[in-house]
Amino acid sequence: MSKTPLLDTLDNPQALRRMDQDALPQVAAELREFLLDSVGKTGGHFASNLGAVELTVALHYVYNTPEDHLVWDVGHQSYPHKILTGRKNRMHTMRQYGGLAGFPKRSESEYDAFGVGHSSTSIGAALGMAVADKTAGNGRRSVAVIGDGAMTAGQAFEALNCAGDMDVDLLVILNDNEMSISPNVGALPKYLASNVVRDMHGLLSTIKAQSSKVLDKLPGAMEIAQKVEHKIKSLASEADHAKQSLSLFENFGFDYTGPVDGHNVIELVNVLKELRTKKGPQLLHVITKKGNGYKLAENDPVKYHAVANLPKDGAAAETGTPKPAARPTYTQVFGRWICDQAAADPRLAAITPAMREGSGLVEFEQQFPERYFDVGIAEQHAVTFAGGMACEGMKPVVAIYSTFLQRAYDQLVHDVALQNLPVLFAVDRAGIVGADGPTHAGLYDLSFLRCIPNMVIAAPSDENECRLLLSTCYQLDAPAAVRYPRGSGCGAQISDGLETVAVGKGIVRREGRKTAIFAFGSMVAPALAAAENLNATVADMRFVKPLDEALILKLAQNHDYLVTAEENAEQGGAGSSVLEVLAKHGIRKPVLLIGVPDTVTEHGDPKKLLADLGLSAEALEKRIRGWAV
Amino acid sequence: MSKTPLLDTLDNPQALRRMDQDALPQVAAELREFLLDSVGKTGGHFASNLGAVELTVALHYVYNTPEDHLVWDVGHQSYPHKILTGRKNRMHTMRQYGGLAGFPKRSESEYDAFGVGHSSTSIGAALGMAVADKTAGNGRRSVAVIGDGAMTAGQAFEALNCAGDMDVDLLVILNDNEMSISPNVGALPKYLASNVVRDMHGLLSTIKAQSSKVLDKLPGAMEIAQKVEHKIKSLASEADHAKQSLSLFENFGFDYTGPVDGHNVIELVNVLKELRTKKGPQLLHVITKKGNGYKLAENDPVKYHAVANLPKDGAAAETGTPKPAARPTYTQVFGRWICDQAAADPRLAAITPAMREGSGLVEFEQQFPERYFDVGIAEQHAVTFAGGMACEGMKPVVAIYSTFLQRAYDQLVHDVALQNLPVLFAVDRAGIVGADGPTHAGLYDLSFLRCIPNMVIAAPSDENECRLLLSTCYQLDAPAAVRYPRGSGCGAQISDGLETVAVGKGIVRREGRKTAIFAFGSMVAPALAAAENLNATVADMRFVKPLDEALILKLAQNHDYLVTAEENAEQGGAGSSVLEVLAKHGIRKPVLLIGVPDTVTEHGDPKKLLADLGLSAEALEKRIRGWAV
Repeated sequence: MSKTPLLDTLDNPQALRRMDQDALPQVAAELREFLLDSVGKTGGHFASNLGAVELTVALHYVYNTPEDHLVWDVGHQSYPHKILTGRKNRMHTMRQYGGLAGFPKRSESEYDAFGVGHSSTSIGAALGMAVADKTAGNGRRSVAVIGDGAMTAGQAFEALNCAGDMDVDLLVILNDNEMSISPNVGALPKYLASNVVRDMHGLLSTIKAQSSKVLDKLPGAMEIAQKVEHKIKSLASEADHAKQSLSLFENFGFDYTGPVDGHNVIELVNVLKELRTKKGPQLLHVITKKGNGYKLAENDPVKYHAVANLPKDGAAAETGTPKPAARPTYTQVFGRWICDQAAADPRLAAITPAMREGSGLVEFEQQFPERYFDVGIAEQHAVTFAGGMACEGMKPVVAIYSTFLQRAYDQLVHDVALQNLPVLFAVDRAGIVGADGPTHAGLYDLSFLRCIPNMVIAAPSDENECRLLLSTCYQLDAPAAVRYPRGSGCGAQISDGLETVAVGKGIVRREGRKTAIFAFGSMVAPALAAAENLNATVADMRFVKPLDEALILKLAQNHDYLVTAEENAEQGGAGSSVLEVLAKHGIRKPVLLIGVPDTVTEHGDPKKLLADLGLSAEALEKRIRGWAV
Repeated sequence: MSKTPLLDTLDNPQALRRMDQDALPQVAAELREFLLDSVGKTGGHFASNLGAVELTVALHYVYNTPEDHLVWDVGHQSYPHKILTGRKNRMHTMRQYGGLAGFPKRSESEYDAFGVGHSSTSIGAALGMAVADKTAGNGRRSVAVIGDGAMTAGQAFEALNCAGDMDVDLLVILNDNEMSISPNVGALPKYLASNVVRDMHGLLSTIKAQSSKVLDKLPGAMEIAQKVEHKIKSLASEADHAKQSLSLFENFGFDYTGPVDGHNVIELVNVLKELRTKKGPQLLHVITKKGNGYKLAENDPVKYHAVANLPKDGAAAETGTPKPAARPTYTQVFGRWICDQAAADPRLAAITPAMREGSGLVEFEQQFPERYFDVGIAEQHAVTFAGGMACEGMKPVVAIYSTFLQRAYDQLVHDVALQNLPVLFAVDRAGIVGADGPTHAGLYDLSFLRCIPNMVIAAPSDENECRLLLSTCYQLDAPAAVRYPRGSGCGAQISDGLETVAVGKGIVRREGRKTAIFAFGSMVAPALAAAENLNATVADMRFVKPLDEALILKLAQNHDYLVTAEENAEQGGAGSSVLEVLAKHGIRKPVLLIGVPDTVTEHGDPKKLLADLGLSAEALEKRIRGWAV
């Protein structure tokens, strides 16, 4: 017999909305059960989904989805939503090639109002929808669900500031679990967590009432009473005044409701029913617990943010934080390097936008707490902050994913590169990232970085190269980026030292004939493999900028066919820079550009994706063979 | 005799600091006089500088610059700072080629702690300096001066949130003139402008005091008094509680001081002296008046934001908003197009991040107020907001400068392009911008846009092309950018209609021999001029993406020498895309790439800058002649 009999009858939110409100707690319980079971099997984001079960049920019960729009911020918490919107039977395909995406995705379902992955976009997107619906006069409603962690990003504030000033019906639900992926940092989360906000609304509401009750009991004849009356009235008025501008959100022009228990589905439904009819921007403050209903996750939500599988028996889970593997990941290589470099140089500081675990800074924080700066989900600030540090002689290292560096692009240009400040960007997850899919793929950094003056860009081809190039770029008195892929490399022996290499110089890894492959970063290994059968020459270019022009010219002279290979968009990437050098020197040889083609990539097993994109060793060999005949 | 005898004796801030405090009002008065005179002659940012005179004097008087750091946000208000820091005698060179930069610039002076131009970076940069100085233990102080307009940008909030949680001595001065360049929009400026914040601090401070005074006068014996006492104590406690979390800035963990009259230099000095010794993050709220001391500017600070010259006699000034010229600017062409397109299509909405005047949307706002959205200085939100609108069938047009689009790069990628949403980016100020210099130059957009899937990118070669390509890209069901330069074009006759052209097709503008120039956007005109003497073929490519491969192949076949020309970084730009096409088709011809070289550009007359960069008609001719021999 099914463990989820009620849920089994719900193929879509319409079916949910036909149920009695009394049945909703059972639906929520079964949804949690199903979620534990399905994520337990497939892996995926976990704790945030458990926290959002009741909220999801209540939202689809009250709102007329998909005509009404639910915009889930980041999307880590969208699994219950996917289960309730006709995708229950595909949950076992989650984050797998050809299967469901780990985030809401417009092309996957009409219920996914806005594609996400990066944080803090929901308020702006829902506001845009609300404006469009108001213009169309179609009566649809828009809801943004955003976590407290995502509220630290500037974009969320920009949207609040804009929405609060507009005559638009919009509901923003602050899903407050006092956590982003890592524990929250910054003043705002402290503010939210403080009792001030949670208690103040109720408390101040009573002040005026209390004041008038007191006055009722004062003998009217007494002179003192008049003075007191005056003062109390004055106090009540002040308190009322204070209340009006008390809440941060009310400062932004939102009506505030809450806090509400986010695990009480009946209370949520009642509150949402009322809010759905309200005019103007509304903020609902919901308190939830990450990992609710699964003790291991409740107790360690950072560990259980994402999991590979789930232990049913209370044993340790295989979580998103990988076990010590035979081959260290690039992230771990970086984590070890930055500790060693920091021990050698007191000027080094590490900056992360809320990605301590993902960026490999757990050990650094323990060893060098006073030089560790987690600025919250605030990529823009992370980079300008680093620029300020660099002005005063510190050596900041910004650890950031390639895809999130997009959010600090202007700061990299305007605050760092134009001023030629020595900030090192440790760009993780460059290239295909796998299960997280296109929103997280780091496919553009070589293109958007190499057009910027003063930038040095390195792309290590293995773990030891990663360490070498980090040490090298760190020593520069200029902005530099070292971009390395997700996961582990080919298992190179890693040096213990902090040796450096020559900037802008590549090395020939294999001498062959006729065909020369200029390979960048992660493509060196497959290029070498492909070269065996082709007997091609392979150069590990090491640097995308400055490019080793001498090496290019030398190999171009000795070979008939030139190939470039990179795990970046073909448009304007490293291969393109080789073409520029060849043109500049008037060298006219056949060149095959191999990179990520100009399409939105899929999610799934990186090996499979790379093969599909023609970037595996086999694909390289086949493509080169088919071309350089 | 000099009109500024005192100021004339001040060659540096050390001299200022040796003066009696009593003399400072006279210094400020002379500084304003000098400013009126110098900006009157050279043009430049005006109203904001007049508003910052007393604040600048007070800051340099109290702070030990340049050891202490003054970080001016945006930098529009830095002229008094430049005058006081040894650059008085060069003020007549302001914003001219080889002269002073219009913004603080580290390479110009040790007093310019951080280079700016874009808004809202000051808090983060000053925080980085404060952290570095704390680490070094050198006792230096950091001050960020930021306007209320710049506070709407998310980056400022990210920095506040981060700073408020850190044990760092930092002073943020909110220079509150209730204006950015355009009147402020959004809830935050309203909040700042409301009496709530301005009055509440003083008012609430008195509540506790008042309460205890009342209690002193109550006869202790009366039973009622005890009740009242209890209530009043409770009220006082609530009020105290409320006060603690009242201010937005206190929410962020800052100690709040203010508001202070920003034109009272003595008061400012006294307040700053006290703040300079305080621990932890401090916020000083200063009220100033843009254009203070010059009536015309006080009354119309938008018009007098920047001026070309100043009338002394009360006649109309020649301001930053240009007079109707014989040739309309591209901005005006856009402004007219969007009104016409909006009249024809009720789905069109215009979005600007606080650049109504600069982007040519004044008339649009008047004609279509309900479809006009000024979101404040909030580029990130502007783009995601547009994405949300596009999901619901509106046709948003984001009017944005190329350089500011850098700040919404992730939103363009993640929220628009990956979802293939039909948002049109009207990218103004693409290329060299002249007096504003490198922070405002739009030199990277072709590189950072063309690597993004789904994007269509057009570069009009004249005013009529601009209108044609706007109409064309607007009709697409995909994200598109039309990038056009600052200023006016060659004076082409502009169509009245909304005709479209074929997407991804260029046209041959001149048939020649031997040499073919693939010209993009603003480079078509100089290419045509150069081609006359060279008898070269010139193609106006119109689109950078999709590129007209057929045209490239055809011309490559018929010509011996190929040239590309663009007003964008050479690295990864349009020329690079031509190389990619040639490589793909195995065509090996000599190609000369002409674009902006890989250096930080200067400020000054655009014609002069373009000639220096080798992008004038004469330079093109010379370069091509020297190459294609």
